[in-house]
Amino acid sequence: MIDLEQLHDCYITTDSKIVLLVVDGLGGLPHPDTGNSELETAHTPNLDAMTQESACGLTTPVLPGVAPGSGPGHLALFGYDPLKYIIGRGALEALGIDVELRPGDVAARGNFCTVDSSGQLVDRRAGRIPTELSALLCERLDQIELDGVQVDVYPVQDYRFVLRLRGEGLSEQITETDPQQTGVPPLEVRPLNPAAEKTAQLVNQFVSEAAQLLSEEERGNMVLLRGWAQLPHLPPMGEVYRLNPAGIAAYPMYRGLATVARMKIIPTGRTFADEVETLYQNFAAHDFFFIHYKPADAAGEDGNFDAKVKTLEDLDTFIPRIRELDPDVFMVAGDHSTPSIMAAHSWHPVPFMLNSRLTKGDGVAGFNERDCRQGSIGRIPATNVMLLAMSHAGKLIKFGP
Amino acid sequence: MIDLEQLHDCYITTDSKIVLLVVDGLGGLPHPDTGNSELETAHTPNLDAMTQESACGLTTPVLPGVAPGSGPGHLALFGYDPLKYIIGRGALEALGIDVELRPGDVAARGNFCTVDSSGQLVDRRAGRIPTELSALLCERLDQIELDGVQVDVYPVQDYRFVLRLRGEGLSEQITETDPQQTGVPPLEVRPLNPAAEKTAQLVNQFVSEAAQLLSEEERGNMVLLRGWAQLPHLPPMGEVYRLNPAGIAAYPMYRGLATVARMKIIPTGRTFADEVETLYQNFAAHDFFFIHYKPADAAGEDGNFDAKVKTLEDLDTFIPRIRELDPDVFMVAGDHSTPSIMAAHSWHPVPFMLNSRLTKGDGVAGFNERDCRQGSIGRIPATNVMLLAMSHAGKLIKFGP
Repeated sequence: MIDLEQLHDCYITTDSKIVLLVVDGLGGLPHPDTGNSELETAHTPNLDAMTQESACGLTTPVLPGVAPGSGPGHLALFGYDPLKYIIGRGALEALGIDVELRPGDVAARGNFCTVDSSGQLVDRRAGRIPTELSALLCERLDQIELDGVQVDVYPVQDYRFVLRLRGEGLSEQITETDPQQTGVPPLEVRPLNPAAEKTAQLVNQFVSEAAQLLSEEERGNMVLLRGWAQLPHLPPMGEVYRLNPAGIAAYPMYRGLATVARMKIIPTGRTFADEVETLYQNFAAHDFFFIHYKPADAAGEDGNFDAKVKTLEDLDTFIPRIRELDPDVFMVAGDHSTPSIMAAHSWHPVPFMLNSRLTKGDGVAGFNERDCRQGSIGRIPATNVMLLAMSHAGKLIKFGP
Repeated sequence: MIDLEQLHDCYITTDSKIVLLVVDGLGGLPHPDTGNSELETAHTPNLDAMTQESACGLTTPVLPGVAPGSGPGHLALFGYDPLKYIIGRGALEALGIDVELRPGDVAARGNFCTVDSSGQLVDRRAGRIPTELSALLCERLDQIELDGVQVDVYPVQDYRFVLRLRGEGLSEQITETDPQQTGVPPLEVRPLNPAAEKTAQLVNQFVSEAAQLLSEEERGNMVLLRGWAQLPHLPPMGEVYRLNPAGIAAYPMYRGLATVARMKIIPTGRTFADEVETLYQNFAAHDFFFIHYKPADAAGEDGNFDAKVKTLEDLDTFIPRIRELDPDVFMVAGDHSTPSIMAAHSWHPVPFMLNSRLTKGDGVAGFNERDCRQGSIGRIPATNVMLLAMSHAGKLIKFGP
């Protein structure tokens, strides 16, 4: 793990290059009719050829039995203990819409909601007002000024928005305003410890000014705020591993997670083809690349087995193009499993392969759960993936005399 | 593990039901003549059929190479780190004869012993006096009164008894009186820290009064006390997992271990058939059941390979009856291995299977050490078993955003 200080002197900078391809929601479960998982069903000749000359295994994102969200799933692959470095909901929501978070900033998930004339909640989601309308309301709230604190309000989708506070001495240790029921008024914010008193006061002032600015609205005349979060303090990936790491992701959330690890974000387009092109253009400039493939998770979460198979087949077509770059280490990993038959993230261990000049005689038949289980890497915590990568790349030298 | 606070908000209460069948001493080793273990030798069609539609693996009770007693073996399966939550000998001895222990109580293992006229030990076990005799001596000691402390003395077997002290401010941090040799007098009890001074004084007073009450006995005219223990402070299983857990066990020791985890104990009979009937009668009333099968361990400890095979075949006949209840999660696990060729508890990983609606396409050929090694669960710490159970039962939601 990245915070194992005993290893910090073992990392060295070299010219070798590492590519970590994270296939979101990669792992699956057998279809009840065929007994084959999505990966076993998909026709993936390029991935299979690669497994035959790779070290293969399965990664456990957090612990056996624990299904992770995107945050812990990615942090673990970057080497951070996901039970120690926790990204709160507000922060992840902000990262998910490309809102910059700096250490010290506090973010919250906001809902526009509707209250009656006596201030009781009648609709916690303001009739799910459309994004265009809530964007206008956000512009209005964005003008609220708080003493010594920069206030920014960003629309997300429908009735949802992100509130970001930037200033000195802010704290995430405050209570939420959403009572989780109608017929009662929104809650006042309370500090969870004395150091959070100032933040609580400022947020209560924000809510009160927001109520005034929204008072004429029929739907969305009030706000609810929850998931208060600051960025966890993470050791920067580049400093610890002595790398110059870059992240390439079409979706903001994953750019955000790369930012949390302090990778450089390389701007890219909206598709995986764009991402691969970005990798090509920038291959000389960095020694570590995180590149993210989203569609597998989306299909899995939809519970669409055939669609997930198709996303894996699509991915397969890009493998030769990445291998052409001849990275010293090329890994295909997943942040978690998303079995289509569950239509959700799951706890199942995730297929993993690492290709380097040392793995030619290694390998298993195909890139799937069952074959990878037999691989030379075995089952490892996802937090060990970077150690393997660094060693295979010649960037992690012998530990101890 | 149960004390991972980061997961505490991820447990939810649902209607689904979990059954954890613990086969005591489940794992074994190959017979030197056949190369097959007890499980591989036994004809267990029902267990084998179940493995073919279960997620299978091996559990490590404590650490590779560490053979556990019943205490750590069971606590680990319930999710408690067995290296952190330690049940002392006196407490386990008390639990083993159905003596209730409450937080704060102190228990010790006692021996009746024989001393000569000068107080030197001549027999540390009082000639192994029979249980009937020591039961009478226990009645006598039970009348000893100590200031502000309730004293109870319970016969165990032969020369062995349990002393339980109940009162305010007692401590287990006192020394033992058994010098582990004859020709010397029993030792005085000393406190191991200042807070234990009162307890040490009370115990020395108990020993002195016991010596007087027993002075006329030819065998058993003195007592030795060791294994001072209080219950460890365990987070209650029901609270942490948000379960309503119940334990069903014919043997007192295992009821005691379930009590330590704060399960409700359902009274049952003396056989496994009684336990299964009790499970039937109470299936509606709880969402988690621990049910214990003792005979496999007993035969293994006897070093009787064929007898252990027979106990596993007997167990097999009950599997359909339990499956008829259609629990959402049905697990077959062991607290440790007890290979007949060792006639002792061992450190070997223990076969494990978990059956749920998600495991139909999973599975291995048979329920034994070799096949389970190939299973999809792999080798996991026993402390992760409850995480898997909770997730498969839909009671452990995604960790982190």
